[in-house]
Amino acid sequence: MNDVDIESLKGIAAQLRIHSIAATTAAGSGHPTSCCSAADLVATLFFGHMRYDPKNPHYYNNDRFILSKGHAAPLLYAAWAETGLFPAEELLKLRQFHSDLEGHPTPRLPFVDVATGSLGQGLSVGVGMALCARLDKLDYRTYVLLGDGECAEGSVWEAASLAGTNQLSNLVAVVDINRLGQSQPTAFGHNLDVYRDRFEAFGWRTEEIDGHDIEEILEVLGAVGLGNQPLVILAKTLKGAGISFIQDKEAWHGKPLSKEEADRAIAELRPMAKSGAGHPIPAPTQLPAPKNEAPTSYPPPPYKLGDQVATREAFGNALVRIGEADTRIVAMDGDTKNSTYSEKFFKKFPERFTECFIAEQNMVGVAVGFATRGKVPFASTFACFLTRAYDQIRVAGISRANLKLAGSHVGVSIGEDGPSQMGLEDLAMMRAIAGSVVLYPSDAVCAEKLVDQMALHQGIAFLRTSRPKTPVIYNLEEQFPIGGAKILRQAEGDKATVVAAGVTLYEALKAADTLKNEGIGITVVDAYSIKPLGTEIIRAAAQKTSNVVVTVEDHYPEGGLGDAVAGELSVEGVRVHKLAIFEHPRSGKPAELMAQYGIDAAAIVSKVKSLV
Amino acid sequence: MNDVDIESLKGIAAQLRIHSIAATTAAGSGHPTSCCSAADLVATLFFGHMRYDPKNPHYYNNDRFILSKGHAAPLLYAAWAETGLFPAEELLKLRQFHSDLEGHPTPRLPFVDVATGSLGQGLSVGVGMALCARLDKLDYRTYVLLGDGECAEGSVWEAASLAGTNQLSNLVAVVDINRLGQSQPTAFGHNLDVYRDRFEAFGWRTEEIDGHDIEEILEVLGAVGLGNQPLVILAKTLKGAGISFIQDKEAWHGKPLSKEEADRAIAELRPMAKSGAGHPIPAPTQLPAPKNEAPTSYPPPPYKLGDQVATREAFGNALVRIGEADTRIVAMDGDTKNSTYSEKFFKKFPERFTECFIAEQNMVGVAVGFATRGKVPFASTFACFLTRAYDQIRVAGISRANLKLAGSHVGVSIGEDGPSQMGLEDLAMMRAIAGSVVLYPSDAVCAEKLVDQMALHQGIAFLRTSRPKTPVIYNLEEQFPIGGAKILRQAEGDKATVVAAGVTLYEALKAADTLKNEGIGITVVDAYSIKPLGTEIIRAAAQKTSNVVVTVEDHYPEGGLGDAVAGELSVEGVRVHKLAIFEHPRSGKPAELMAQYGIDAAAIVSKVKSLV
Repeated sequence: MNDVDIESLKGIAAQLRIHSIAATTAAGSGHPTSCCSAADLVATLFFGHMRYDPKNPHYYNNDRFILSKGHAAPLLYAAWAETGLFPAEELLKLRQFHSDLEGHPTPRLPFVDVATGSLGQGLSVGVGMALCARLDKLDYRTYVLLGDGECAEGSVWEAASLAGTNQLSNLVAVVDINRLGQSQPTAFGHNLDVYRDRFEAFGWRTEEIDGHDIEEILEVLGAVGLGNQPLVILAKTLKGAGISFIQDKEAWHGKPLSKEEADRAIAELRPMAKSGAGHPIPAPTQLPAPKNEAPTSYPPPPYKLGDQVATREAFGNALVRIGEADTRIVAMDGDTKNSTYSEKFFKKFPERFTECFIAEQNMVGVAVGFATRGKVPFASTFACFLTRAYDQIRVAGISRANLKLAGSHVGVSIGEDGPSQMGLEDLAMMRAIAGSVVLYPSDAVCAEKLVDQMALHQGIAFLRTSRPKTPVIYNLEEQFPIGGAKILRQAEGDKATVVAAGVTLYEALKAADTLKNEGIGITVVDAYSIKPLGTEIIRAAAQKTSNVVVTVEDHYPEGGLGDAVAGELSVEGVRVHKLAIFEHPRSGKPAELMAQYGIDAAAIVSKVKSLV
Repeated sequence: MNDVDIESLKGIAAQLRIHSIAATTAAGSGHPTSCCSAADLVATLFFGHMRYDPKNPHYYNNDRFILSKGHAAPLLYAAWAETGLFPAEELLKLRQFHSDLEGHPTPRLPFVDVATGSLGQGLSVGVGMALCARLDKLDYRTYVLLGDGECAEGSVWEAASLAGTNQLSNLVAVVDINRLGQSQPTAFGHNLDVYRDRFEAFGWRTEEIDGHDIEEILEVLGAVGLGNQPLVILAKTLKGAGISFIQDKEAWHGKPLSKEEADRAIAELRPMAKSGAGHPIPAPTQLPAPKNEAPTSYPPPPYKLGDQVATREAFGNALVRIGEADTRIVAMDGDTKNSTYSEKFFKKFPERFTECFIAEQNMVGVAVGFATRGKVPFASTFACFLTRAYDQIRVAGISRANLKLAGSHVGVSIGEDGPSQMGLEDLAMMRAIAGSVVLYPSDAVCAEKLVDQMALHQGIAFLRTSRPKTPVIYNLEEQFPIGGAKILRQAEGDKATVVAAGVTLYEALKAADTLKNEGIGITVVDAYSIKPLGTEIIRAAAQKTSNVVVTVEDHYPEGGLGDAVAGELSVEGVRVHKLAIFEHPRSGKPAELMAQYGIDAAAIVSKVKSLV
C-alpha cells in the first residue's frame, strides 16, 4: 500500500461527495448525508485497495463490493463513474425514469451484483460469495459496506455467525457508524465497542478506526486476509461528513440539499476534490476460471409407475442426479436436510453444500451470493419457514437472482405437527415475487423433471414438495414444461373440470372414480405449474365442461391455485369454485385433516355434485 | 427458595419425562428427547420458582412462560397437567384431532399465550410482555425457554438487543443447550461460552449452569431480577436426558420411542418419579389490574372535503386520536416513524411507544407480546419491510393475536426510491394469513375510520397506506365497515365496473370523467376492504355492467385486489380484467411509473374502451 497516494484518495473522496450532493439535489430526493459518511471508506476501497478490472465489473476474479446500505447508491455510482466506467455527467440523471441509476442499486447496472435497499441483507450475500470463492479456488475478496442502523437486523447476525464458523477470512465487512438512523440516533451512537463486542462474539476479527482518516483506513485494509477470521472494520464517521453546516446533525436522513445548500457544500469541497480516473487500481490475479457452463439436459430419473415416493424425497434424488451432471449446482439447508432430503446432496457433494443452521434469511442470502457467481443454488427448508426469508426472496426478485427454492411439508397433509409447521401461504407468497416460477409436483417423476427445469431456467423458481409418499403416476418420457399442465382424466360429457396439484391431485383422481360410478364424468387437470399457469390447457378443458371449474389445494384460499385460475380465466367466463383450507387448521392425521377442511375426494365429490 | 424440596422437584422432573415419553409414543410422533433435555429446567421453573395461579393461567399478574422451542410441547402440557389444571390422562391424547394438545402449542390451550413451533420467535414475544409489565406497573416476570439450535435465528438477537438496551430485568431467557439440532449437532455444541459472549455483548447478564442440577437451577433463579439487565441462563443439557440408552445420541430428534423403548425408559424413570400436584407454587403478588377495557367508539377525525392528506399521515393522526380515548393502544416502529407517521403517537404518548429500530421481526413479536397482555398494538413500517416479519405474522395468525399492522409506501406510486422500497406483494402476503383483515384506504377519512375498526376488531388487521397526498373525498359521517365497499360512481347504462383502492381510486375517478365525456359510463367501486372483500356490493355492481369488471391496483398481479375479486366472483360469472404491476418496476416519478405500468387513468380508459 506504500505506493498509494493519500492526497489523491482524499481528493477522490471529496469528488465522490460532490457527485453525491449534486446528483441528489438534481434528483430532488435521495440520501446525500449517508453517502458523505462513507465517502472516505469507498474512495479508499475503490482507488486504494480493491483488486478489480474497472472496465469489466463482471470479471470472475474481481474483488466484490456490496453496498448493503443501498440508500448510499449515489456514492457507489460516483465511484464507478470515477473509475471511468461511464461519464460522470450521467450521475445527474440519478433516479430519473430512463436512467439505470435508480434510487437504490439494482443489477440493471453491470457493477451491481444484487439489489440492496432493504437493509441488513448484504452481508448474507457476501457470505455466499466468499464461500463460492473458496469453492472455486479464486482469491477475490468480498467487501460489504453496512450502515450502523442495519446492524439491528437479525439477518446481519445470522450472516456474521456463519462467516465466523466458516472462518471466511476472504470476507470483509465495513460498518459506517455515523450514529444517526432515519428517525432518531441509533441505539449505540458512536459507542464502537458495542459493535466490536458483538462481532467478536460472533467469531470476527475487529478493527476500530476513524472512518474519515484515509491513512487509518488503508492501514487496516492492508491487513485484510490475515488470520482465519472474517474482518470487520468499525468506522466511526459523521453523517454528512465534509459538509460543515450539516455533518453530524439530526433530521438530515434521506433529504437532498437545496440548490443553495448544495452550492455552498460543493464550494467547500471543491478545493480538495480530484477526479479518480486514471488512478492505478490494483488488478485481480489471474487464476483459472470456474466451470459454470449449463448443460442442455440431464439424465432421466429412475422411477417406475406405482413406486411410492414423497416428492420431497424425489427433490433430494434429483439434486444428486443433476449435481453429478452439472457442477453449477450447489445446495444449502436450514438444519432440515434430513426432512427436505437435501441431505442426499450433502452426502454426495459435501463441499458444494452449506449447512446454514436455523437461519433462513441468511440461507437465502447465501444462495443469492452463490447465484451471482454463476452457480445454481438450491436452498431448502420447510415451505412455511421460507416465510422467514420473504424479504430476502422479494429482493432476490428485484435482483433477478438465479435462485432456486424448495419448500417441503406443505399443507394440512403433514398432519400431527400442527399449523406452525404447515406451509399454507407459500403459493401466495411465491406467486407475488416479480418474475418467479412456482411449481408443485404430485409425483416423483414430475418432481424430478421440474428440478431439471428449475436448474435450466434463469431466475427465481420455487418447488413445493409434500411430506406424504405418493404413487408415481407419470411415465419417464413425460415432459413437464414450465407453464404447462397435464390432463389426466377427460371424456366427452364431463360435467366439471377439477384442477388440483400435489396431494390433492390424488384426491381428484379418487373423486373421478367415485363420480364415474355414479355416472358423472369429470376432467382432472394436474396444475403442476402454478406460475406461469397452464392457462390455455385449463381454459380449453374448462370450456368443454361449461366453464365449471373446481380447484382443490392444500393451501389457504387466498393467493394460491384457486386465485391463480380465477385470476387468469374469469375473463373467459370460467367459474372457479375453490376448495382450500378456509379455517385455522390443527393437529390430526393427514386424512382427518384433509376431510375436515374439505380438500379430500369426498369433498370434491360433494362439490361437483352440488354443481351439476 | 430454602423451603423448596429438591427431591420433590427431581421427582416431578422424572414425572414430566415419563409423561413426555408416554404421550409421544402413544401419538406415534413428536419430540421426546427435546422434552427430556429441558425437564429439570421446566420442573424447577413451574414447581420451585415461578409465581402464578395454577388454576387461572390468564391471571394478569402471573409470571409468563413461553416455550420458544415449541416442539417440546409435551413437556409443557405435562407441567400444566401436574399443576392440576387438567387430568394427566389427557396427555395421552397428544396430537389427536379432537385434542387441543397439538403437536406444537397454540392458544387453544388456556396456558399458552402464543403459538410456537417456528423457532426463534419466543424471545421477541417475551420482550413485548416484559415491556408491557413495566407499562402496567405489574411485577410479573417473563420466562422464555429457548433451544440452542434456534439461537441461530437472527430474530433472537434482535430481541436480545432490544431487551438489553431497555434493561429488561423482568425478563429471563433459559437456553436448553443440548448440543444436537435436527439434522446434525449445532454449530457450537456444548461450548456454552459462545452463547455467554454473545448474550453479554447484547447487554445481558449470563449464568452458565448444569441444566440437570436442580440445586444449581434454583440458585440462579434465586437471583432473577437483580441488577438492571435481562438474565439468560445457559443450561448445559443432554438431549434425551434421563433415558440412559438414548441421551446425548444423534439421530433422535423428532422421533418417538417404540413401545418397548418407552417401557424401558419409563421403567428407569419410575422409581424417581413423583407427581407435582399439591406442591406449593408461589402465588403472584396482588397489584391493581391494568385498565384494558375497549371503548365502543372513538371521537371523529377532523378533515374536510378536499383536504390533501396522505393516508399514512392520517394513520398517524388516527393513532393519536384513538390513543387518547383508549389506553389499550400502544405502538411500535422500525426506525421509520417519521415516514409512517407513527411519530405522532410517539410524541404524544412516549411511554406507550417502543422504538424497535431496524428489526421488523422483533417488532412484530414485541407487538404480539403486548397483545397477549390486553393491549392493542399498532406496529408500523414500510409495507415492503413487513415481508421481513412474514413468519412472525404467520404465527401470529395461528395465535389469533390481536395484532395491528400498518404498512406505508406501497406500490410504484412511491416513485424515485425504486423497487426495494415499494410494497408490491403485501396484499398477497397479508390476505394469506388465517383470519386476517386487510384494509386499503384511499383518503384520510377512510384511513382514520379504518384505524378505529382495526382497534375495535379482535384479530390481525393490516392497513395499507400510501405515500402521496390524496384529497379527502368522504364526508365525516361516512361509515367504513370491515367487509364493505363504496360505490362512488354509478349510472344506468354503465359499461364496466372499475374496482380500485388507494391511489388507483383517484385514477378510476379521472377515467370515469374522461369516459363520460366520450359517452361511456363506468361504475367506480372503492374496495377499501380487501379481506373480507365487499363481495356483495361488487357483485351487484358488476351484474349491472354485464359482469365486466376492471380491477386496478398498485401491486403485483398475483394475490392482490384482482385475484381477490376474481377468486370470489368468478363463480358468479364476473369477468375480471386486471390492471396491476406486471413488470419489474424501476425508479421514476410516481406519475411516470403509474403510466408505464398501466395503472393510471389513461390505462383504465384504454382498457374499458377495449372491452365495450
